[in-house]
Amino acid sequence: MDRIWLQDMTWQEAEEAVSRSRGIILLPVGSVEQHGLHLPLGTDTYLAIGLAEDAAERTGVPVAPPIWYGWSPHHMAYPGSTTIRPEVLIELVYDVISSLSRHGFKSFIIINGHRIANIPWLQVAAERAQRRLGVRVYLFDPAYMSREVVEELGFGPVGHADEIETSHMLYRFPEFVDLEGARDYVPEAKPLYIVDPRGVGDTLCYVPSTVEDVARLREVSGGAVGRPTASDGEAGRRYHEHLVQRLVEVIKRVMEA
Amino acid sequence: MDRIWLQDMTWQEAEEAVSRSRGIILLPVGSVEQHGLHLPLGTDTYLAIGLAEDAAERTGVPVAPPIWYGWSPHHMAYPGSTTIRPEVLIELVYDVISSLSRHGFKSFIIINGHRIANIPWLQVAAERAQRRLGVRVYLFDPAYMSREVVEELGFGPVGHADEIETSHMLYRFPEFVDLEGARDYVPEAKPLYIVDPRGVGDTLCYVPSTVEDVARLREVSGGAVGRPTASDGEAGRRYHEHLVQRLVEVIKRVMEA
Amino acid sequence: MDRIWLQDMTWQEAEEAVSRSRGIILLPVGSVEQHGLHLPLGTDTYLAIGLAEDAAERTGVPVAPPIWYGWSPHHMAYPGSTTIRPEVLIELVYDVISSLSRHGFKSFIIINGHRIANIPWLQVAAERAQRRLGVRVYLFDPAYMSREVVEELGFGPVGHADEIETSHMLYRFPEFVDLEGARDYVPEAKPLYIVDPRGVGDTLCYVPSTVEDVARLREVSGGAVGRPTASDGEAGRRYHEHLVQRLVEVIKRVMEA
Amino acid sequence: MDRIWLQDMTWQEAEEAVSRSRGIILLPVGSVEQHGLHLPLGTDTYLAIGLAEDAAERTGVPVAPPIWYGWSPHHMAYPGSTTIRPEVLIELVYDVISSLSRHGFKSFIIINGHRIANIPWLQVAAERAQRRLGVRVYLFDPAYMSREVVEELGFGPVGHADEIETSHMLYRFPEFVDLEGARDYVPEAKPLYIVDPRGVGDTLCYVPSTVEDVARLREVSGGAVGRPTASDGEAGRRYHEHLVQRLVEVIKRVMEA
Amino acid sequence: MDRIWLQDMTWQEAEEAVSRSRGIILLPVGSVEQHGLHLPLGTDTYLAIGLAEDAAERTGVPVAPPIWYGWSPHHMAYPGSTTIRPEVLIELVYDVISSLSRHGFKSFIIINGHRIANIPWLQVAAERAQRRLGVRVYLFDPAYMSREVVEELGFGPVGHADEIETSHMLYRFPEFVDLEGARDYVPEAKPLYIVDPRGVGDTLCYVPSTVEDVARLREVSGGAVGRPTASDGEAGRRYHEHLVQRLVEVIKRVMEA
Amino acid sequence: MDRIWLQDMTWQEAEEAVSRSRGIILLPVGSVEQHGLHLPLGTDTYLAIGLAEDAAERTGVPVAPPIWYGWSPHHMAYPGSTTIRPEVLIELVYDVISSLSRHGFKSFIIINGHRIANIPWLQVAAERAQRRLGVRVYLFDPAYMSREVVEELGFGPVGHADEIETSHMLYRFPEFVDLEGARDYVPEAKPLYIVDPRGVGDTLCYVPSTVEDVARLREVSGGAVGRPTASDGEAGRRYHEHLVQRLVEVIKRVMEA
Repeated sequence: MDRIWLQDMTWQEAEEAVSRSRGIILLPVGSVEQHGLHLPLGTDTYLAIGLAEDAAERTGVPVAPPIWYGWSPHHMAYPGSTTIRPEVLIELVYDVISSLSRHGFKSFIIINGHRIANIPWLQVAAERAQRRLGVRVYLFDPAYMSREVVEELGFGPVGHADEIETSHMLYRFPEFVDLEGARDYVPEAKPLYIVDPRGVGDTLCYVPSTVEDVARLREVSGGAVGRPTASDGEAGRRYHEHLVQRLVEVIKRVMEA
Repeated sequence: MDRIWLQDMTWQEAEEAVSRSRGIILLPVGSVEQHGLHLPLGTDTYLAIGLAEDAAERTGVPVAPPIWYGWSPHHMAYPGSTTIRPEVLIELVYDVISSLSRHGFKSFIIINGHRIANIPWLQVAAERAQRRLGVRVYLFDPAYMSREVVEELGFGPVGHADEIETSHMLYRFPEFVDLEGARDYVPEAKPLYIVDPRGVGDTLCYVPSTVEDVARLREVSGGAVGRPTASDGEAGRRYHEHLVQRLVEVIKRVMEA
Repeated sequence: MDRIWLQDMTWQEAEEAVSRSRGIILLPVGSVEQHGLHLPLGTDTYLAIGLAEDAAERTGVPVAPPIWYGWSPHHMAYPGSTTIRPEVLIELVYDVISSLSRHGFKSFIIINGHRIANIPWLQVAAERAQRRLGVRVYLFDPAYMSREVVEELGFGPVGHADEIETSHMLYRFPEFVDLEGARDYVPEAKPLYIVDPRGVGDTLCYVPSTVEDVARLREVSGGAVGRPTASDGEAGRRYHEHLVQRLVEVIKRVMEA
Repeated sequence: MDRIWLQDMTWQEAEEAVSRSRGIILLPVGSVEQHGLHLPLGTDTYLAIGLAEDAAERTGVPVAPPIWYGWSPHHMAYPGSTTIRPEVLIELVYDVISSLSRHGFKSFIIINGHRIANIPWLQVAAERAQRRLGVRVYLFDPAYMSREVVEELGFGPVGHADEIETSHMLYRFPEFVDLEGARDYVPEAKPLYIVDPRGVGDTLCYVPSTVEDVARLREVSGGAVGRPTASDGEAGRRYHEHLVQRLVEVIKRVMEA
Repeated sequence: MDRIWLQDMTWQEAEEAVSRSRGIILLPVGSVEQHGLHLPLGTDTYLAIGLAEDAAERTGVPVAPPIWYGWSPHHMAYPGSTTIRPEVLIELVYDVISSLSRHGFKSFIIINGHRIANIPWLQVAAERAQRRLGVRVYLFDPAYMSREVVEELGFGPVGHADEIETSHMLYRFPEFVDLEGARDYVPEAKPLYIVDPRGVGDTLCYVPSTVEDVARLREVSGGAVGRPTASDGEAGRRYHEHLVQRLVEVIKRVMEA
Repeated sequence: MDRIWLQDMTWQEAEEAVSRSRGIILLPVGSVEQHGLHLPLGTDTYLAIGLAEDAAERTGVPVAPPIWYGWSPHHMAYPGSTTIRPEVLIELVYDVISSLSRHGFKSFIIINGHRIANIPWLQVAAERAQRRLGVRVYLFDPAYMSREVVEELGFGPVGHADEIETSHMLYRFPEFVDLEGARDYVPEAKPLYIVDPRGVGDTLCYVPSTVEDVARLREVSGGAVGRPTASDGEAGRRYHEHLVQRLVEVIKRVMEA
């Protein structure tokens, strides 16, 4: 069986992967940031890896090595959290795409496990890559790609280390979940400020919270926002399966384009 | 009556404006890019200016000089369109905020007339300003702040130089609208790709179209996407009024915070 | 009648403007900085706008949207003053020129209302644009373009918010002048340091004053240097007219080149 | 048992790891570049990961998520190879160190699997981090840390995808080695140019080969330099064990310092 | 006798030089660019060195090692000419000043041998150093500091490798002058464009010529502009002496300030 | 006799030098940093200059103007020391090479007098120049090019302002040596950390010491590391001669390649 990860292939196998996948490659990105007392710092990248791996298995499209680190300035009050400046991430992703485009990869699907905070710099990197390199870049984000299924799964709004992420981890990476640490915290809605991609009301646009704002949750919930105690592995499985199918669908459409 | 625009004040008047407004200031940003055959290149900045001016009139909050130029790489096939690299815009906005923060301005409401394409770099600039300068930055975008009213006004989805922008211009800057040039173009929905902030279905995230994609509309609609021929000044008035009220509401909440 | 400002044109009108003007475009730049107690913060940009507009009316050459903000590190002790780093301004002007050069504009006349302090970064931007883009860039600065007329108008040396700028504003933008606030301050000449472009003696080269130096004038003259109380609208008219004629002359020579 | 990888810990576990390890953390870096026909593209990062994991097991010092991508401009003629500009890598590593230093990590041991080519930018990043952040950074490179043992193991000079790397992989990551693809290529010594860290003769300093130079090996050896066919898992085990012991020794000395 | 050049001192002698000179240091900058057929590529830097050395002899103020390379994009059609981007020069000069300011040097007099083209980036570097480092920076340029004496010496307008530079070199560095190669070329005045610092008429501001413009002189005069054949060592001596006295005067005023 | 230094040539002589040297040019780089109480701050650059000059004399290959300043963050506690950020040096050297490559120079031999600390940024600059400009860059460093001769000359390990540098200066630039100031300091070997290019034991890679570490030597030895009191001009002569011959050998090989 063919290898999935680019780093596991010889260059000849990589050459074959280019033609087998019609030049499509997946790139998982995430973050290393606090995820409450019950999820690991690498949750975002792990989830991106899980989606990429499973869609790669089903389609034969290869996966480039993950970019573990993301932009998390607001989580820096919690030990182990890291943040990379957006301009560094833009250049890094651009160089990865630029390198791979020289070998015939021409469609890049970036799987973002960090949800909303990683999107801005990914958009800038993606546009530049499309313009300069003549490639196509697609941004696949779980929060935007699950808008049709979350209600039916009983998930509340997008928070942080919430029941969505926790259920997802429970299914795909259960070894990293310690549900006993889960603490709920449901903030009051802020008027005219909806971060959730499912929102339909009038809103200001998202800007990451300040580090002081997030630090306040330390004693409240250990950093979590949402109802992680309501997490459920079966809902996580359906959520994951929905996303993998969506990702497969995107891959197939790109292949046929 | 007090002056609205910072550039029209002496420095003493600016000093008074800081305390009168409790340190709030508006900053209009936009773009210089094609808007079909019926709207001017400066449409986005004009609309941001119009919103800022009218909310300033009602609240006494000052307005900083507009940043005319935006990020429009995808419109460059149309004469007169300009695009500034996101990294330049980030530094520019950061320097404006940094300068004004030294005089006591501590809450910045950026009025973005360019809708979705300007958001990513504004988010990066806003977060950095909040983190380094200890200020608060709010991103006010018409497309996100009108989600509750557009249906009732009979507007279709967000396009480009569409009936929303055209109606808005008809009301607030009629001297710049030439409805005879308006050409409709309603593209087929792309599967799993919804750019409209009102969207609720599963979607990839927005990346600006390529310059080639937009160039194709030249012969089709002169660059417009949507139904500008359905524009209506009265609907534009209600749309504008909705946004100004929302902006006043944001200003009041910030003042009281 | 044809529109003057690029932002007011549709892209088709911009296309016509390129050929009508033989590829010439004006770009007003200025500053937002203290101008004493009698002139507004935006004085420099307003004056650049006034010159550009009036020359455009007479020649049919279009004007690109103004760049309001300039480099004013030395004025930062006065509320409302802003300063953008030179490297940011260089990239900004370069991107504007680069964008417009793609549409056939090939001769750029930058109208600088900020006089000496904006020149260095404009020179760097202009040279780079000429070298990389194959365009021609001309720097039109009132202080250098009025050397032949100022004596006859009775103006003293170039200062700041002085009788030259004040007279100019009195004529072109009287609504922004409050002569009652005008305070004179004539500094002693510094040996071997002449900032005035009319100077003929030995001199060190100009470097912006420090912020502390300029702050000292706050109680002395409200930030002004020179004799604004001697300002005169008729002299301002003749000064303005001289500059507009010079600008028209430059435009014609470029057109014929 | 305690977790080794930072990404697998909650932030509370990370907090404990800081004190348990006395502020020491390992950071594996490598490359994604061709390694002949018998080793995978990710060989360098895998080997850094293997060393870090095994030393972490023995000492309780945590490991930060790996940086997969490195500087490999000379390998770009081989499919799947990637290269990141040194300035991007410097900023990336700096941001990782900077982030972690805010949580009490103060001694960083970078495990470099990419050998000589990654060293220059790591040196620049390390010095800057030491100077600005008040931390200590150590660069652990297998080629320099095995100078005392390689002869006794029968390894020839440092090449690329040579018997050293291949034996190392055979022991630690055998699932990724396909010895049938191994092709030997022993280049003539260049006068006054010794890349091997074991060298003692007069030499110019190392500069990465050009992409054309390395491309020439494609038909010769599939990109390998050295004698991979002579690889041996038992020698690989002893080589790995030597390096892990050295790494443990470095960790202990830093702990006691 | 005390050493003049910083590079010739031990660090203890440098420490003494700081107090002896009351924290003043000279920094010669220039260019490596064509100077016709009769002057060497290093003319500009040599002349800056000559001025610095002679003023240092008379005052005891030390001289920092010269920066040989300058910004000369317009001379690149002539073999041996070099050009450094302004942003690189700005950072380089800033780092030199920043380094020396840490040792107590607080007044920097930059001696610019490259005349008008080096001024813009020096202004930017000087202002930044003054603002961030709390030092004072003075820009001493022969063309601006000789406005009072050139007429009396019979020198024509400032050109390039003209009779001013040639006479100066004849006196101070005669071993590098080959007068037989001197070719005159006196261009027609361009309307409204005066580069000469002595000019008093209306003018656009200086922007370096294009490389094509300067290349045209190759067959005409070997790159010279002006009347180098009229050069005269005695006039050069008086010119040099005038400048050295001016420089000594500047140094004394700074010492007493 | 032909001139050696590029700055001393007219552009026509430079043109001849390109063909005479078959496109080879030498570039001396060094540092301005403390060298104990007995050697001048400019020691490193002087030694690079000395090697370049003497090899140029014997081969007819020209020498580009020296870059006096280097990267010396660790010496900044000693008056007169300067340090330039590596990214600035990279761009500076790149621009020099880029400029000269446009005139036909295609082989650059950089003579580094600063030994190990300058190597990383030179490697980055060299690789980029090779890749982008199609030139060849060679890094000639005395410490690496004398590994075969130092023992026989009785020199101890590479330190700082040690008997190697001091003997070298005694022979080539005796006017700058004050042996009475020489103070010995022989540090204990650090386990697993060998900076000397002659080392053969296991080692971490070099990272410049911290400024605090080097500051501690001020009272001990005035900043020197090694046995400068054992210096000897005759050994210096043989050391210098060895290096010049090696450099000539490199030049000849490049000429014949």
